[in-house]
Amino acid sequence: MAPTNTVNVDLQRERDKCTFNITELTHLIDGGPQNTEERKKREDMVLKEGIHVEDVPSEYLSHKEKYELAIKKACLLFKMIRRLQEEENTGMENYRAVLGGMLGSAILRDGSPLTLHYVMFIPTLMGQGTVEQQAYWIGRAFNLDIIGTYAQTELGHGTFIRGLETTATYDPATKEFVLHSPTLTAYKWWPGGLAHTANYCIVMAQLYTKGQCHGIHPFVVQLRDENTHMPLPGVKVGEIGVKLGMNGTNNGFLGFDHVRIPRDHMLMKNSKVLEDGTYVNAPSSKLTYGTMMFVRVMLVHDMCNYMAKAVTVATRYSAVRHQSQPKPNEPEPQILDYVTQQHKLLVGISSVHAFRLSAQWLWNMYNNVTAELEAGDMERLPELHALSCCLKAVTTADAAECVERCRLACGGHGYMLSSSLPTMYGLVSAACTYEGENTVMLLQTARYLVKAWQQARAGSSVPPTVQYLARAAARRHPPWENTVEGLILGFQQVAASKVSQCVQTIEKRQNSGMAYEDAWNLTSVQLISASEAHCRAILLSSYYEETKALVPAASPALRKVLEQMVDLYVVYWALQKLGDLLRFTSISERDIEQLQSWYESLLTSLRPNAVGLVDAFDIRDEILHSTLGSYDGRVYERLMEEALKSPLNQEPVNQSFQNYLKPLMQGKL
Amino acid sequence: MAPTNTVNVDLQRERDKCTFNITELTHLIDGGPQNTEERKKREDMVLKEGIHVEDVPSEYLSHKEKYELAIKKACLLFKMIRRLQEEENTGMENYRAVLGGMLGSAILRDGSPLTLHYVMFIPTLMGQGTVEQQAYWIGRAFNLDIIGTYAQTELGHGTFIRGLETTATYDPATKEFVLHSPTLTAYKWWPGGLAHTANYCIVMAQLYTKGQCHGIHPFVVQLRDENTHMPLPGVKVGEIGVKLGMNGTNNGFLGFDHVRIPRDHMLMKNSKVLEDGTYVNAPSSKLTYGTMMFVRVMLVHDMCNYMAKAVTVATRYSAVRHQSQPKPNEPEPQILDYVTQQHKLLVGISSVHAFRLSAQWLWNMYNNVTAELEAGDMERLPELHALSCCLKAVTTADAAECVERCRLACGGHGYMLSSSLPTMYGLVSAACTYEGENTVMLLQTARYLVKAWQQARAGSSVPPTVQYLARAAARRHPPWENTVEGLILGFQQVAASKVSQCVQTIEKRQNSGMAYEDAWNLTSVQLISASEAHCRAILLSSYYEETKALVPAASPALRKVLEQMVDLYVVYWALQKLGDLLRFTSISERDIEQLQSWYESLLTSLRPNAVGLVDAFDIRDEILHSTLGSYDGRVYERLMEEALKSPLNQEPVNQSFQNYLKPLMQGKL
Repeated sequence: MAPTNTVNVDLQRERDKCTFNITELTHLIDGGPQNTEERKKREDMVLKEGIHVEDVPSEYLSHKEKYELAIKKACLLFKMIRRLQEEENTGMENYRAVLGGMLGSAILRDGSPLTLHYVMFIPTLMGQGTVEQQAYWIGRAFNLDIIGTYAQTELGHGTFIRGLETTATYDPATKEFVLHSPTLTAYKWWPGGLAHTANYCIVMAQLYTKGQCHGIHPFVVQLRDENTHMPLPGVKVGEIGVKLGMNGTNNGFLGFDHVRIPRDHMLMKNSKVLEDGTYVNAPSSKLTYGTMMFVRVMLVHDMCNYMAKAVTVATRYSAVRHQSQPKPNEPEPQILDYVTQQHKLLVGISSVHAFRLSAQWLWNMYNNVTAELEAGDMERLPELHALSCCLKAVTTADAAECVERCRLACGGHGYMLSSSLPTMYGLVSAACTYEGENTVMLLQTARYLVKAWQQARAGSSVPPTVQYLARAAARRHPPWENTVEGLILGFQQVAASKVSQCVQTIEKRQNSGMAYEDAWNLTSVQLISASEAHCRAILLSSYYEETKALVPAASPALRKVLEQMVDLYVVYWALQKLGDLLRFTSISERDIEQLQSWYESLLTSLRPNAVGLVDAFDIRDEILHSTLGSYDGRVYERLMEEALKSPLNQEPVNQSFQNYLKPLMQGKL
Repeated sequence: MAPTNTVNVDLQRERDKCTFNITELTHLIDGGPQNTEERKKREDMVLKEGIHVEDVPSEYLSHKEKYELAIKKACLLFKMIRRLQEEENTGMENYRAVLGGMLGSAILRDGSPLTLHYVMFIPTLMGQGTVEQQAYWIGRAFNLDIIGTYAQTELGHGTFIRGLETTATYDPATKEFVLHSPTLTAYKWWPGGLAHTANYCIVMAQLYTKGQCHGIHPFVVQLRDENTHMPLPGVKVGEIGVKLGMNGTNNGFLGFDHVRIPRDHMLMKNSKVLEDGTYVNAPSSKLTYGTMMFVRVMLVHDMCNYMAKAVTVATRYSAVRHQSQPKPNEPEPQILDYVTQQHKLLVGISSVHAFRLSAQWLWNMYNNVTAELEAGDMERLPELHALSCCLKAVTTADAAECVERCRLACGGHGYMLSSSLPTMYGLVSAACTYEGENTVMLLQTARYLVKAWQQARAGSSVPPTVQYLARAAARRHPPWENTVEGLILGFQQVAASKVSQCVQTIEKRQNSGMAYEDAWNLTSVQLISASEAHCRAILLSSYYEETKALVPAASPALRKVLEQMVDLYVVYWALQKLGDLLRFTSISERDIEQLQSWYESLLTSLRPNAVGLVDAFDIRDEILHSTLGSYDGRVYERLMEEALKSPLNQEPVNQSFQNYLKPLMQGKL
């Protein structure tokens, strides 16, 4: 933290009037003072290496130079991690400690070309390889003798995995698989690090043996010569071009022209192909759900991090920025004093806590279910899967909306890349598509909810997180109560009513002769809405319950603020979803008017703590990397300092004056 | 248009099944076959010059190279315009015909450094200069002897113009003004072309003479030497850095250290400073509203163009892309067959028409009011101002939402810059901030509505577009009717009720002792919502009325589709705003369920015409510039062709392999 005497006076005044202990909240967020201390130590250790420092800010570079800088940084980072692993007493057993959370993204701000090596290549080897295969590959991969990635999505095929076209055909004569891309749409497209970085790759391909297709299986394929890095014969590899964001990730394409690999390069922990070409089936594939769900839970955590950054930037800027003169002869107020600005920012701050606690709750559930799975009990797997799908969709969409709202709340300056908000938006918005496109995700949850409703309606028992469906099916509607608990019950009633209405509509359409799939499709706009309603009810109740469990340990001042934020979040969403509440609960116009004043008074109560609340996220300047959001609030100085780094500003007259502008003005062009 | 035989078969099938004549709709959009022909001729003439063709796609360039390319293109474009102006029979009297609409943006896809010369510098000289000043400056500017821009916004001051800090102090001794930037926050910040392009600038500054401040006035200031382009002494000028978009516009900063300009460089059409320093006041400043309103009407047209491009890309892509297998043993359907996809796209198509017709309606009103103004009648000025504010805010926000939804509807490929959707988003989203930040705009309209309500309540007459307030104030509530007309009346009732509720809340707060400004601020979240509701009612009714006036001339097949699109737009918004309708009208649950099926059946009816509807926008491939959206639907081929243009793909191994990757893998980094 910067010494107090250089801090912008408005920001300092905000900190002085904060009603709670900011450090106490930081400890609570980190999960205890010891975690905070460890985090800070880790940050010190990594940042003192200076890898994050850029001579010319990377946004000024060409696409190619951006890649070259990303490779340099990623290599230096991994070198450092390897060194820290070797130093016994650092306590950094693996890369996750360094790269997890916000620290990694502070160094490689627009994605890393080596991420998939650790996040997909090594985990897939571990999860899908036999013991022998693991012994052979994992050591090499951990030691960075080879660099791998994971290729599944194709140019013409994404979410629908069965539609992939790449083939791996077994040739018993040579005991090899032949990898082939039969069409242009079969080209792998998107994998990070694939373009010019990785020399190995796990390729998901349709397995053919003895003339039969057995579906998608994983194969380890060498792409480039280990010494020269030249693509091997038959391997067509390159990069896919510039994207909205993540331009450091080196996303690539990959096509095969009859490329041969040894039989034992198929990862055979589950299914096998014997030497003679006999296919031996996998025992169970349900277990692979685990990884997908793990990734989605991690994604909710990522969304928290981005939202925390965005609200930190926008809130601090709103305390520094002054505008207009609503009262004559008074100075221009801080824009944070405008209630419309509080409306834009404060729900974002409470969303960070809502998502963090919901992710934690989901994480605990994930661990319980995983333990049950290992004991052979799969009962809660569909429930968990349905939860992870809708939470993925709703939290990524909300996070994108939140980051963009924060950006717009900073006016023109939010449009500057130096605010860091546009880059954040690029990263968050990508998450709406990857790891399961959001509309598809919501429809998967809807499928579960429809089944659960049919069970509840038939009087069968249903899992805990859809228990409210049973209550609704039994027509036990609680009377309306204008409290947080009452609103949560209201949201559950909304979700149950929407699911029930969808089921009715589908059944009606089937009865009029429509095929189930067509009835489903025609009802899908409503199904998505039901699925979102379910997720809203889950988010509200888990945020409320987890906070209730947390506050007894907090000081009274902090407790009050934590409870105000839950209230704000719940009331905000009630006001957003009034149409649903009016349709499906007994809320009255008077209740609504009360909710509106409650909301406005919560904004007023939380206003003095706005800066304290974002300070408590404790995101240091090097990680935040924003001209508008730094701790000291030197917004205008930093904007100018950053502008002066532009290569265009290194010379008073650009060459284009002589070449084009002057000839144009002189009529000689 | 490409010859039919190379068109993707799915797209061709879509065109074959279109139920209306696509060309007829194109003519209707252009305002007659002759306009269509002229537009096409203009496009041919400009595009055959080849200025839009890029050797290396500009997205791969560095920030500096992007500027240099933009200057080159802009100069060549203006050279061409000058030549066409000299050729008598081209019919191109001015640059607007070439640069207006979509054509200019096809050549300078991420903004032009010369735009403000024509859009602000010359118009301000014309509007604010005396006849002598016009004679001196406008010729030089039109002839491009000098290149100018317009500097108003400062680092610390945007929407609130009275807060600007730059000073122009008159010195009667030398008969000069002294321009000065007293603080860092006084630096001009944002003007396009200011950084390294313009050599002249109109600077808005606080005028001081005889020790008194007279507020903001315009001054023509030379910034750079006409021959060497070097900044003049005391002029601190440069560029502000990389932004989310518009990186071809060369936005700059500008500070003055006591820079002297002749007295007659103040534009004195309205106010004057005499030689002795006497200030002579302007007769009326109401007339300057005109320009602002003109710009906002143009902005609504721009939004139409961007939305038309975005829905063209996403709809054609959705016809080409196949995914999943809802029914076993059937092929993967086009994603356009998913009702959730239709839900994302079709309302976007109808919004283009809604915005276009509303802009036209506003344009007619603007012309009427301007004529009245010239006759000294200012009565309808506040109404028009209120309309232009809320339409600016709502159409820019809706357009940004529409473009982003289209981008997300294209899945991962929408994230590629080659889709053109991310660049479009950058441009559209900027419009939410410039020309009046959207929240500020909505509050300005709210101020008008509150006054109008008070008038209506008191029984005074109110202008036409708020006539519905008088109806509501007289408690003449029409019974609910589930028709388009009924829904529009419902939206008016919602707007009136919201305005009335705001007035009540503010008055209640004042009665409890709050100052008016504080009561206003505390109610501002509701005020914004009332203002939006007013705008929705306007958009729905103007779209409906303008279409009604248009369809009698259309063929029956086209008429049907045009009416379906109005229905879709109105029903879509009714379903979006159910909470409001339930609160403030007598709509029933049964009405809502009917609306939902109506909406679903409209999607089904419009589905076969989706491609025909976007084809009718007639945006040629060079202007659309999208791998996903071209007329022939060769989506995957174009994605690959574009990727292969990446400079990274020009060599099989990037130099970073030798410098970093190999040493890392060998443990030698």
